[in-house]
Amino acid sequence: MSKKGSKSGKKQMVYFFGGGKAEGQSTMKGLLGGKGANLAEMTNAGLPVPPGFTITTEVCDAYNRAGKKWPAGLEEEVKKNLARLEKLTGKKLGGSSNPLLVSVRSGAAISMPGMMDTVLNLGLNGSSLKALIDLTGNPRFGWDAYRRFIQMFGDVVMGVPHHDFEHILDGVKKKYRRKSDPELTAEELQEVVAGYKKLYKGHTREEFPEDPIEQLRKAIDAVFGSWNNPRAIKYREINDIKGLLGTAVNVQTMVFGNMGNDSGTGVAFTRNPATGEDRFYGEFLMNAQGEDVVAGIRTPEPISELKRHDPKAYKQLMAIRKKLETHYRDMQDIEFTIEKGSLYMLQTRTGKRTAAAAVKMAVDMVQEKLITKQEALLRVDPNSLDQLLHPVFDPKAVSGAKPIGNGLPASPGAASGKVVFSADEAEAWAAKGEEVILARVETSPEDVGGMHAANGILTARGGMTSHAAVVARGMGKCCVAGAGDVVIDYKAKTFKAGGATVKQGDWVSLDGSTGKVYKGQMPTIEPKLSGNFGTIMSWADEAKRLGVRTNSDTPHDTAVAVNFGAEGIGLTRTEHMFFEGDRIISFRRLILVAEEVKDLRRALEAATGAGEAKKIEKNLKAPLAQYNKALAELLPLQRKDFEGIFLALKGRPCTIRLLDPPLHEFLPHDDAGQKEMARSMKVDVRKIKATVEALHEFNPMLGHRGCRLGITYPEVSAMQVRAIIEAAINVAKKGTKPGVEIMIPLAGNAKEFELQRDVAEATIAEIKKEKKLKKLPFEVKIGTMIEIPRAAVTADEIAKKAEFFSFGTNDLTQMGCGFSRDDAGKFLGEYVKLGIYEYDPFQVLDQSGVGKLVDMACKLGRRTRKNLKLGICGEHGGEPMSVEFCHRVGLDYVSCSPYRVPIARLAAAHAALKEKAAGNSRKK
Amino acid sequence: MSKKGSKSGKKQMVYFFGGGKAEGQSTMKGLLGGKGANLAEMTNAGLPVPPGFTITTEVCDAYNRAGKKWPAGLEEEVKKNLARLEKLTGKKLGGSSNPLLVSVRSGAAISMPGMMDTVLNLGLNGSSLKALIDLTGNPRFGWDAYRRFIQMFGDVVMGVPHHDFEHILDGVKKKYRRKSDPELTAEELQEVVAGYKKLYKGHTREEFPEDPIEQLRKAIDAVFGSWNNPRAIKYREINDIKGLLGTAVNVQTMVFGNMGNDSGTGVAFTRNPATGEDRFYGEFLMNAQGEDVVAGIRTPEPISELKRHDPKAYKQLMAIRKKLETHYRDMQDIEFTIEKGSLYMLQTRTGKRTAAAAVKMAVDMVQEKLITKQEALLRVDPNSLDQLLHPVFDPKAVSGAKPIGNGLPASPGAASGKVVFSADEAEAWAAKGEEVILARVETSPEDVGGMHAANGILTARGGMTSHAAVVARGMGKCCVAGAGDVVIDYKAKTFKAGGATVKQGDWVSLDGSTGKVYKGQMPTIEPKLSGNFGTIMSWADEAKRLGVRTNSDTPHDTAVAVNFGAEGIGLTRTEHMFFEGDRIISFRRLILVAEEVKDLRRALEAATGAGEAKKIEKNLKAPLAQYNKALAELLPLQRKDFEGIFLALKGRPCTIRLLDPPLHEFLPHDDAGQKEMARSMKVDVRKIKATVEALHEFNPMLGHRGCRLGITYPEVSAMQVRAIIEAAINVAKKGTKPGVEIMIPLAGNAKEFELQRDVAEATIAEIKKEKKLKKLPFEVKIGTMIEIPRAAVTADEIAKKAEFFSFGTNDLTQMGCGFSRDDAGKFLGEYVKLGIYEYDPFQVLDQSGVGKLVDMACKLGRRTRKNLKLGICGEHGGEPMSVEFCHRVGLDYVSCSPYRVPIARLAAAHAALKEKAAGNSRKK
Repeated sequence: MSKKGSKSGKKQMVYFFGGGKAEGQSTMKGLLGGKGANLAEMTNAGLPVPPGFTITTEVCDAYNRAGKKWPAGLEEEVKKNLARLEKLTGKKLGGSSNPLLVSVRSGAAISMPGMMDTVLNLGLNGSSLKALIDLTGNPRFGWDAYRRFIQMFGDVVMGVPHHDFEHILDGVKKKYRRKSDPELTAEELQEVVAGYKKLYKGHTREEFPEDPIEQLRKAIDAVFGSWNNPRAIKYREINDIKGLLGTAVNVQTMVFGNMGNDSGTGVAFTRNPATGEDRFYGEFLMNAQGEDVVAGIRTPEPISELKRHDPKAYKQLMAIRKKLETHYRDMQDIEFTIEKGSLYMLQTRTGKRTAAAAVKMAVDMVQEKLITKQEALLRVDPNSLDQLLHPVFDPKAVSGAKPIGNGLPASPGAASGKVVFSADEAEAWAAKGEEVILARVETSPEDVGGMHAANGILTARGGMTSHAAVVARGMGKCCVAGAGDVVIDYKAKTFKAGGATVKQGDWVSLDGSTGKVYKGQMPTIEPKLSGNFGTIMSWADEAKRLGVRTNSDTPHDTAVAVNFGAEGIGLTRTEHMFFEGDRIISFRRLILVAEEVKDLRRALEAATGAGEAKKIEKNLKAPLAQYNKALAELLPLQRKDFEGIFLALKGRPCTIRLLDPPLHEFLPHDDAGQKEMARSMKVDVRKIKATVEALHEFNPMLGHRGCRLGITYPEVSAMQVRAIIEAAINVAKKGTKPGVEIMIPLAGNAKEFELQRDVAEATIAEIKKEKKLKKLPFEVKIGTMIEIPRAAVTADEIAKKAEFFSFGTNDLTQMGCGFSRDDAGKFLGEYVKLGIYEYDPFQVLDQSGVGKLVDMACKLGRRTRKNLKLGICGEHGGEPMSVEFCHRVGLDYVSCSPYRVPIARLAAAHAALKEKAAGNSRKK
Repeated sequence: MSKKGSKSGKKQMVYFFGGGKAEGQSTMKGLLGGKGANLAEMTNAGLPVPPGFTITTEVCDAYNRAGKKWPAGLEEEVKKNLARLEKLTGKKLGGSSNPLLVSVRSGAAISMPGMMDTVLNLGLNGSSLKALIDLTGNPRFGWDAYRRFIQMFGDVVMGVPHHDFEHILDGVKKKYRRKSDPELTAEELQEVVAGYKKLYKGHTREEFPEDPIEQLRKAIDAVFGSWNNPRAIKYREINDIKGLLGTAVNVQTMVFGNMGNDSGTGVAFTRNPATGEDRFYGEFLMNAQGEDVVAGIRTPEPISELKRHDPKAYKQLMAIRKKLETHYRDMQDIEFTIEKGSLYMLQTRTGKRTAAAAVKMAVDMVQEKLITKQEALLRVDPNSLDQLLHPVFDPKAVSGAKPIGNGLPASPGAASGKVVFSADEAEAWAAKGEEVILARVETSPEDVGGMHAANGILTARGGMTSHAAVVARGMGKCCVAGAGDVVIDYKAKTFKAGGATVKQGDWVSLDGSTGKVYKGQMPTIEPKLSGNFGTIMSWADEAKRLGVRTNSDTPHDTAVAVNFGAEGIGLTRTEHMFFEGDRIISFRRLILVAEEVKDLRRALEAATGAGEAKKIEKNLKAPLAQYNKALAELLPLQRKDFEGIFLALKGRPCTIRLLDPPLHEFLPHDDAGQKEMARSMKVDVRKIKATVEALHEFNPMLGHRGCRLGITYPEVSAMQVRAIIEAAINVAKKGTKPGVEIMIPLAGNAKEFELQRDVAEATIAEIKKEKKLKKLPFEVKIGTMIEIPRAAVTADEIAKKAEFFSFGTNDLTQMGCGFSRDDAGKFLGEYVKLGIYEYDPFQVLDQSGVGKLVDMACKLGRRTRKNLKLGICGEHGGEPMSVEFCHRVGLDYVSCSPYRVPIARLAAAHAALKEKAAGNSRKK
């Protein structure tokens, strides 16, 4: 981008456009705003654009910084450009013969529709009004333009309440029994103008300005100032618009679509923004101004009808449509006006579109040779693909509905159902054929069955990586998590939210893409995947370097993910498997004796005499037998789990993480649950309570979990490794060789990893001996998760024995930033608002902090082991910005929940293409 | 160290000593063991050492690695050295005319007294016994030597139970009605020998070996093997002895102190090891062997009495004492034997000593010009200073007592008292003049008063950095923390431990230096600080580069620390101040409305209409008034706190940390406490319960605390800053300028720090305006703690605005390693045992992990700000190895609890001296 300097060597503050030439161009959006840059571009492209000039965003910034003062030289530049405009048009601002009227509009680099201010018909005063009436021979048009100007100027520039103007207008209408504005005569409008001027003076303590230069200066001030009005600030906050200097100001010759039946105005998209279909799409009104189209007083006609009203203009517009698409090589959103048979283009910009339309247009435009495949890929926002993969609410139904609660958009999609408050009830109701929504304060692994049975899950607590969120995303099921304003009462089987009380069995609707909770049943639209989607995905695979795997714990999820293009599993969490069916009983039996076994073994080690040792050995016998029995019960069940997953993967690699959560997560914490457990297992409830108490931790996140469990209970690790290897042998016999990757969780220390690796290797050696195998009929890799900061900074040591790293960025974020993901919701929102973090670090990887640890670990690890395999299996693995980061630091793959696999594939392609582009631009 | 190679180019396996010359020297302890190296050194120094040879520790290692086989060439080398020995002494092993007898002893590089095996009188068999009897003319001596040899050889080498030998000896004694061994005649001893040989054969299925070479080989095997006997392994584990290859074997000519009244044996220290006094100190027995001195059958005489028995030997010994001290330049622990008037030195080694003796000897030896000041400093173990600073139990009382429980040695010292179970009772009983021990499951800030009143604190839960431990160390008060086997029953007012039940009011005794808990009252010895202590400390200050500050929250602790040489405060925790007296009520009032204020403010920001905003503003009025009132109440109290501390510091710098713990820590969590709070504050108890519930966190360690509170409640930070600055102004008026350092806790992000810095600066500007000051009459620095891994890796960003860093290594260890300090006790012990961590990372800084983060932060921070001040205020600041690390990475100071200040000063001196020595040796 080149910035022209003015003669004085200072930066140019105003850019002229008109007469087939413009000083700006479309690449200058940062400086001229989107509107200004495109007006310039269209002018240069020979399109009929009313001439004008644009004051830069830099000027806005300087103005606001200087405490609302014009920078030196601006006045001069504005006057010079105004003179140029007057010369080009042959009109004069405020002139008494051929008056120039202008619009003054805001326009930032990123569109903020309706957020900032606009003044139309500027330049009108006593004498120019008279001239306008003389010229048009239409007093009503003149007086109407004037009253509109006074109202807009008074409201926007001087802060006279809009409502007060409307009040005067209504008064005159009432007086003359007029039902609508167009019915008012010129004389009646003159009365309105008088009332407006009086109101203006009463409010501002000055006369309405006659001097058009003063009008212009004040209007420009107002547009500059509107950059920082509260609603604009909020809009930028909500839409995450950052780093802009301010708004540009466009001063442009007015054209009028309301000069009679040979005039009109309209808006259009060059293709259908909802479907992507290659048809001109829009609407218009004859004898109307832009605001009339929006106001909805008259119903606009579809654009194809223009052919009937004004065939010449229509033909011209169709040519412009073609020209714009060829010029911009993308679908455009345009505004036009016809003034007495002449067509004028007021705006063009790249049109917003649905995900489906984006995909279709991208593929079509490649076939039309308008863009390359690479460009096509970059045209589709990876995040938007969510829309294509999950059901959404019918937009018509949503537009009227008021949500009763708000939570985190934890798992996308939309769902309606009758609300229930326990997993058991969810299963029972679903079995009866009911549509169900499961509402819980928070979920635990025990709830997985109920979550599966429900259409959607609502939790009152927990973040984007809470149990509910993670499991729901894995299932591709809609989930709204951590809805703080939803107060659940399990006893009463109700929840309260937004003033409403919802009872069990009442219909509720959840939007997992927005986090909104509605009362009642809302119609959903099921997603359909088009052939174009497959095309884009195949192009993405050609472009990307990163592998994309999935996080999956079941054969079903695995099959879904493989169908979405997953190249393997990056994370299988084995603990979820412990909850299914009867196995939870075996595992709980193990837990109940595990501490005892551990303590007695330690006592045995410390025993000084043979007598003492014998006594301890005797005491150890019974619990150890129970411990080993539980392990023996779990082994075949786990083996079967792994067989299913290996089969679903059809030879693709599979990273299986050994047991990770602390043992207390497998025990019930409430009295009723404990009693039920005691009854069903025939154990003293006091034993259960004592175990829960003994396992209690102040900060479980930093507690006895991950490989720390494996160190304390090596037999549990050994059982899991045995199940994995035996399953793989069984599957290999059926003809496909599984790619087995055993992952040790939560290692923070090389030695810790090595001890667990030793257990795995000894188990494998044992199996080989038992089965008389010289070598296994498949490859086994043993690696670790890097999720503790210490592991990241000592990755060179760990890589000596670890064959792969998988970054567990959820925990790495928790420990790296010192945020408990279950608690940080209390302040993280504010942190993002204050700009402490640009995004919630649990949603978007904190690249400058946690990312530095990841980068460091990659470099250190590969220093020791050149071919170290690197991946990520935290929730960030499916988030486009984070995927781009993973590409940049050289990971081999990302892994994410099944329904995010397409998003990750496209994001990986974007990352590769952007890198290439950056490399090319560096070469230049 | 130079290792001589044998002719074959292989490593030398055996080192000879004797005839005034030895192949080894004292620097070769690693290879020859302490005993072997010193025997060589003494030989070379011309002292009368019975000749012999030493088999190296490398041979032991090779032997054990090869599955208990002699390495090739060893047999040859041993025989060669034996021949040399026989030649030198003119005697022959097992010879029938002038027989050579030898001892075979273990000797590792680090002394492991009594842990490994020794065989004396080796070489005796039928013919050499006869020759011995002929030569000495003393059959009783001969037969006694032989029966001792058989017993030792049988027990040590062949595993014949010691008890069985004793049984035979007792039988003969009974038969002849002898009360003690010496009463047995030669003939009776001959009967014992016969019984011993029969026992030997019955147990080993072979005859007692006559071949002296076979005897020697087997004895050497036994010594090698004893390296890995369970008791030796356990000893090394307990005493943290790591990295040794094995034991050396010393084969040495026997000399006999039991050859009549012109013979004798003794042990001595060249100076008094208890007091350090420069007087020869030891004891001896005439006509006795070494084991008789130990056995306690006869009472040894003090060494000075030797003058009477053998003036020549005494004179010679005094000369040797002098010679050894001059040679070794340190106090020696020696063993000697007089055989028929000839003095032999059997051992010398640096003598163990008490801390008091170490200090006195170090200072004395400098005055004697024996050593330099630097050497003197290195002679005193920093950790040992604890003995001088705290009361200890009378060793006589401890030696008999069996502890009922064991915990962590959380705060050194010894204390007895009547046990109570609540802080209130502790205060009440102490007020009545009782000596009290406070026992709690864990302590919280509410207990501080009771802790102060108690003589010692016992907790059942929590680690070395738990609340109880930290506070007790600050108070210099004995504390045993996390005693897992102590089960406290608050209701019954008892605790159970080691099978005993202790009721309220029963006496218990705690040793905070060992972690042991005793029942009953145990006499303590109060510490006394000598002038020598001051001398060593002043030398330490000359040698050290690191500054030493203290962690202190009260004027009293500050004064104690300054008295111990603290150069300022590195950490004042302001939260402890919130608990005193009525201020807790003000603070609780603030907490009860804080959430409401926060939520309403957020709602106000989000309000879209003026009406809504007005409504919210109205609702905000009452809670905001209460919030501000509480702050206003706290301000003068905090100001007074800071004034006291500034005055106690007399102008030394003071780092004050703003509020750190999560708010829920200030509220009672039990029902009774909440009701009491409701009653005393006249608040609805439901409001309190709701607040506790709202503030509950799953992982409070990673929760809403530190500067996160300051971000949410900037007024709290502002109040604290105001209190600090106003206090400093008041103190400055009195004549001393305080060095004010305001520390923002828990910053993980530069922006987070900057927002809090802005609050502090705005407050300071406000105060200057109010007081009409152009500048403050003292310097103010604003810095942060580095305690979150993210802060360490983004330290360059943070240093842009932070003037100092203080490493909070407690939290940095928690988050860096992923260990909750309150929970990790469950597995950390095992982790240290398994060598995963060399030390508990909460006690000794984990240099290779957490230390790497510290090092990184130092480098990054100084890259942005060259003169960035760096310190540490975690508990590691008073731990010698960690202090050395702090020196190495270039910190400016360490900060520790008052009673550890002298330890840190000495450790800092050690660090500087070691660095210098390493630099010198590198230069060489």
